[in-house]
Order: sequence, then C-alpha cells, then structure tokens
Amino acid sequence: MSVENVVYIGSKPIMNYCMAILSSLRDESRVALKARGRAISTAVDVAEVTRNRFMQNLIVENVEIGTEELESEGRMRNVSTITIVLKK
Amino acid sequence: MSVENVVYIGSKPIMNYCMAILSSLRDESRVALKARGRAISTAVDVAEVTRNRFMQNLIVENVEIGTEELESEGRMRNVSTITIVLKK
Repeated sequence: MSVENVVYIGSKPIMNYCMAILSSLRDESRVALKARGRAISTAVDVAEVTRNRFMQNLIVENVEIGTEELESEGRMRNVSTITIVLKK
Repeated sequence: MSVENVVYIGSKPIMNYCMAILSSLRDESRVALKARGRAISTAVDVAEVTRNRFMQNLIVENVEIGTEELESEGRMRNVSTITIVLKK
C-alpha cells in the first residue's frame, strides 16, 4: 500500500511531528510516518502520542519494517526503516 | 495474536539477540521480539539483520506498536513499545 501523505521523522521534538500529522489529516484520511535508524523509536513515540493525546479515533492501519542501503563516508551500509500508517 | 516464544530486546549487541532468535526458532515456528523506548530501533535492526543475513526465509508476520505506563523516579510516565513477530 502506498500512501502519498508522508511525514518524515527525524531528530526534531516529538510535538513538531504531531502537529505536522494533525495538519496533514485535515484534508486526508491517512498519513504515513517514515523513519530510519535511531529515529525509528521517535516515530513510534510520535504515532502513540498523536493517538493517545490528540486524536483518539486514529488507528494504526499498518506497520512495515525494512532495510535501505545508504552511502556513508564512502562505503555502503544498511540502515533499518519503519513506515507507520495512521488512519482516521 | 499471542506468541509464547519471546525475545526481549535491550541494550546488548545486536548479534546476541540474533543468536537468541535463531536458537529459539529451532523448536518453534514463530518468535516475538519485544522492546520499549530507545530499544525499539534496536529491535527493528535485530529483525532485519536476522532476516537478511541469517535466515532469508523468515517473514515479518506482524508488527504492533503500543504504549505502557512505567513508574520512574516516583512518577508514572508513558513509554512506547513494539512487538515484531517473525515466522519461518
């Protein structure tokens, strides 16, 4: 399943991403949260805080994990990824 | 779905958990990886490394995220959780 409405999770404060999600769900019924590496834990926090504090009717429609190859300092290394699809 | 065969992911090296998973899959067809907080990213790494390097026929059967209340320094705080079910 491909969701066009995507919020990329990085190292900003969790609330920034919660606000981006709430804003993106004004016009859409689904949003995909995508993160890599250490930000994966943050993505789960963002999904849970949004559901528990801001939008109790949000459901976790799908969670997928995977691996991407990234070039870092001239060599390839693998990094884990997560995609969490929230639906209102 | 409840899986009795569980590996709890913490702050040990990834390979320790991969070995625990491979060992637990000798007698069982499924294993659940469980992690909280910052260890969530490690759990995804462990699942991906086990699938990509050690057991290519493993599939990610289910991924669930959630929230648990923990007591920390005398007050309750919420911590995110993940459960990843791998099936051979």
